[in-house]
Amino acid sequence: MNPIFRQVGLFGKYHAAPAPAMAASSRAALGDIARFLADQGCGVVVEDDTAANADITGFPTADIATIGAECDLGLVVGGDGTMLGIGRQLARHDVPLIGINQGRLGFITDIPLDQFRTVLPPMLAGEYDEDPRTLMQASVLRDGNTVFEAQAMNDVVVNRGATSGMVELKVEVDGRFVARQRADGLIVASPTGSSAYALSAGGPLLHPSNPGWVLVPIAPHTLSNRPIVLPDSVEIVIELVAGRDASANFDMQSLASLQHGDRITVRRSQHKVRFLHPKGWTYFDTLRRKLHWNEGGV
Amino acid sequence: MNPIFRQVGLFGKYHAAPAPAMAASSRAALGDIARFLADQGCGVVVEDDTAANADITGFPTADIATIGAECDLGLVVGGDGTMLGIGRQLARHDVPLIGINQGRLGFITDIPLDQFRTVLPPMLAGEYDEDPRTLMQASVLRDGNTVFEAQAMNDVVVNRGATSGMVELKVEVDGRFVARQRADGLIVASPTGSSAYALSAGGPLLHPSNPGWVLVPIAPHTLSNRPIVLPDSVEIVIELVAGRDASANFDMQSLASLQHGDRITVRRSQHKVRFLHPKGWTYFDTLRRKLHWNEGGV
Amino acid sequence: MNPIFRQVGLFGKYHAAPAPAMAASSRAALGDIARFLADQGCGVVVEDDTAANADITGFPTADIATIGAECDLGLVVGGDGTMLGIGRQLARHDVPLIGINQGRLGFITDIPLDQFRTVLPPMLAGEYDEDPRTLMQASVLRDGNTVFEAQAMNDVVVNRGATSGMVELKVEVDGRFVARQRADGLIVASPTGSSAYALSAGGPLLHPSNPGWVLVPIAPHTLSNRPIVLPDSVEIVIELVAGRDASANFDMQSLASLQHGDRITVRRSQHKVRFLHPKGWTYFDTLRRKLHWNEGGV
Amino acid sequence: MNPIFRQVGLFGKYHAAPAPAMAASSRAALGDIARFLADQGCGVVVEDDTAANADITGFPTADIATIGAECDLGLVVGGDGTMLGIGRQLARHDVPLIGINQGRLGFITDIPLDQFRTVLPPMLAGEYDEDPRTLMQASVLRDGNTVFEAQAMNDVVVNRGATSGMVELKVEVDGRFVARQRADGLIVASPTGSSAYALSAGGPLLHPSNPGWVLVPIAPHTLSNRPIVLPDSVEIVIELVAGRDASANFDMQSLASLQHGDRITVRRSQHKVRFLHPKGWTYFDTLRRKLHWNEGGV
Repeated sequence: MNPIFRQVGLFGKYHAAPAPAMAASSRAALGDIARFLADQGCGVVVEDDTAANADITGFPTADIATIGAECDLGLVVGGDGTMLGIGRQLARHDVPLIGINQGRLGFITDIPLDQFRTVLPPMLAGEYDEDPRTLMQASVLRDGNTVFEAQAMNDVVVNRGATSGMVELKVEVDGRFVARQRADGLIVASPTGSSAYALSAGGPLLHPSNPGWVLVPIAPHTLSNRPIVLPDSVEIVIELVAGRDASANFDMQSLASLQHGDRITVRRSQHKVRFLHPKGWTYFDTLRRKLHWNEGGV
Repeated sequence: MNPIFRQVGLFGKYHAAPAPAMAASSRAALGDIARFLADQGCGVVVEDDTAANADITGFPTADIATIGAECDLGLVVGGDGTMLGIGRQLARHDVPLIGINQGRLGFITDIPLDQFRTVLPPMLAGEYDEDPRTLMQASVLRDGNTVFEAQAMNDVVVNRGATSGMVELKVEVDGRFVARQRADGLIVASPTGSSAYALSAGGPLLHPSNPGWVLVPIAPHTLSNRPIVLPDSVEIVIELVAGRDASANFDMQSLASLQHGDRITVRRSQHKVRFLHPKGWTYFDTLRRKLHWNEGGV
Repeated sequence: MNPIFRQVGLFGKYHAAPAPAMAASSRAALGDIARFLADQGCGVVVEDDTAANADITGFPTADIATIGAECDLGLVVGGDGTMLGIGRQLARHDVPLIGINQGRLGFITDIPLDQFRTVLPPMLAGEYDEDPRTLMQASVLRDGNTVFEAQAMNDVVVNRGATSGMVELKVEVDGRFVARQRADGLIVASPTGSSAYALSAGGPLLHPSNPGWVLVPIAPHTLSNRPIVLPDSVEIVIELVAGRDASANFDMQSLASLQHGDRITVRRSQHKVRFLHPKGWTYFDTLRRKLHWNEGGV
Repeated sequence: MNPIFRQVGLFGKYHAAPAPAMAASSRAALGDIARFLADQGCGVVVEDDTAANADITGFPTADIATIGAECDLGLVVGGDGTMLGIGRQLARHDVPLIGINQGRLGFITDIPLDQFRTVLPPMLAGEYDEDPRTLMQASVLRDGNTVFEAQAMNDVVVNRGATSGMVELKVEVDGRFVARQRADGLIVASPTGSSAYALSAGGPLLHPSNPGWVLVPIAPHTLSNRPIVLPDSVEIVIELVAGRDASANFDMQSLASLQHGDRITVRRSQHKVRFLHPKGWTYFDTLRRKLHWNEGGV
């Protein structure tokens, strides 16, 4: 069985800046996986920081952009947060990702570390289910200039300061006025993000195959301000009308101290992130496991 | 300004069976509208029951199927319920519909009766916004046989009997197991139905341009059984596992006394219903008006 | 250690009418418990149906009323439903209750069957925490006459028929008009019932020490119709204004086919039900266990 | 008709610090009310800031503490926020309050400005309904020392920073462990506060006669973390376990930058605030008006 993936980029828990020492077991696991991939006939490139932290030797290392350009698969060892961060950065390279999870399984990192030896080989040979996810392109416009810009896989959140009252937001979709909302904030979530913060705030789950965004107000003053699911082809604009110390958060990448009149825009990126799962994967199995649906409720 | 619609079918509040006497004002309005349409150069066909109840004379009458076959526009005077009923029946004829509302405006019947003389002419001349809506094709299968079948524009609901406890339902999507749910019931709503019963039960609003269904559990035993938005290309099957006196309701067309093992299936109809609105219409304007978003909340 | 309870009434899963054969393990358990209580120095009286079904011999048997009159403790082996049913019937006798649960622990039956030998002795000696619960006295008034009357420990529910639309209810509290509500129904729940059906319908948890009832609308048409917590000293009247096939359900004791104008009244019973728990019991421990708060969420 | 209140303290929109110029109409109204009260035979004392801002002459002025000591009624012209602020400060003097509202009526300021001449006289003569409200005494304990302390009529809120993730809070009630919660924050609301922020966050309404607090988690990670209504006799402790930039807010009086281990405690104040309403007032009338229950829903 020959791998269809020639070059695999390997990532551990990703930290842009000063990384805490990786757990010993995690370091060991990364080395094991690198050697296993090589044994399967794949070229292996270890991401620079991962290599440094995990102390992996004997493999070429590269930064994430180089991996994006040269690899045809990314393999991430970590949790959902790590996976999303790398997914965002690799999106423009169209490199698919497999997630291996050392702890409690996530929504998208669903291969237990202790099973990688049996689960990976068929996937490397092409036996997998592909699970493409949309990506948001978000900006903050101030006086017509873009003062902040980032991609988000989960959500774009505009919210109030910690000790200030509600913000007032004006929402437009494709140039059409939707509503003025007074609330703690407003979430625009992708299907990927619909099971994260948006769910806590009362939003619905969006199946990844539904091409939508969901707008979820956080603690809205008007009780009938309910979540709205939009097609993901629209452009959403959220303007800060009133409120102090508001901030914009794109997958937790933040711009604090928004000013009145700032316009946060969200549209679908031209790129998608492609997660690969073992054959037979369904989103519903993940939901049942993560939301404890099998435990009989109250 | 010549009408682009040659033949217009005219419908009043629709009743399959013994219709209560229509209000006098409503009867007069229907006659006025018929004459107005004729003055605009349209052929007018009055639906049989409408003609009988409204006492309209001087126009040909026909049953709804004939109108579907021969007219290129339907004009409905009534509320959302009337509009949906006629929409369901005209769907396979691809006849677009305009809704005129005598009372409080609805989600889809948004032309006030007292404005029809100014609003209709440009619409008849082709100046309108088209608002296509998906339709559900739903059935109840018992021992492999279809024992009930109907179309629904709003929702398919499976729910418990009035004096019995919860039902237990098994949900599958495209043959994949989703969950067993114990609840008062389960709603499958279209975007059109998402602002009706599903909203009361805690579901999100679905923009008509989002090609989705939303599954909304009613008073679910497991608190994490949250609404899920699916692509509308799937087939949903709901099987009654436990519970007495359960029923299936397709836009309130009901099959009572479901049996354990009955399978309710929902898929997208090949037909759509096309609502026409005055130029400049947006779904968001309707939401603000119907949900009282402009009233400042608490 | 002498028991402070002289006479203990023993109850198995209670069925007013034709009881299904009790599980063999359950039958054996009841006999074991009866002998254990006798060994502890208590007089034991087995409830008639329990004795018949569990095939317990060597102990006097009595009906529930006699047990209420003559025993100073009731011991129930079963789930929350069984416990609530017996609690309702013993309330006027002021006999405290201990619940032993064979399966998954309940909110109020919290002693695992396999631990009764260690847990019961200190409780019989007076080492317990008392947990008094309010009881509802509910009636249906039709044309001024009481046509149905019952006590409820969990909730009083007025709800729509299975295949009919919403009911319209008019609510009054102590003669003051509260609201007209259109909904699937309305729940009046005690603190005991607040963790049952009312919770599924979106109500809050009420600590048993808060002297309140909570009104919880089921799928209300008006989105701002939110749960309201009232003092339990009030009289609540719910009048059926519109809707077909509505029913009143007092702890699932039902009156179907309500008529328009029927008035369902709820007030606090003069009796309380006293549950006894092992020393150190807290309501919060029960909540964490039953609501899976310790499982880390999503 | 002689007033039963000898000395009335008069308050306009209250600002601790630099007050914006009061609207001209508001200034005029305060003078009118002062003269009207005098004509009714009451002594009138104008609060210092109010006198300065409203330019009222001819009446003695005093600070709020003096008014509390010397007046037997407070009359507030403003919104709910103003009323709550003054209520908090007058609570220990047991001076009842009447609220006159110039704009949209509030939950507790329910006398329209243009009706004061007809509504006030009977109230001054003793014809009123008294509506006592509980007050919270809240503190922040750090290393055993009280570092912040205030009273709150609406709510005590612990919440996350604007650009940081969830906080983790440990909740105890009367020394018993309740739960660890990961959320945007946690609200402890009085009945008065239950119709404010807590309602937006999903909490129930608490009737002012129910002696309770309600704990409402804000966007909780664990979906079964539902609002809990407690008796108001308990002491609630919320400990910050994890999270950056968290803050404590007591009716919007804030302590930012909480440290891990800080303990926010809430207990009932020994004082109550007494609002007076025109005879026949009910809380339910207020709810219907404020929550738009009379508008027919969707």
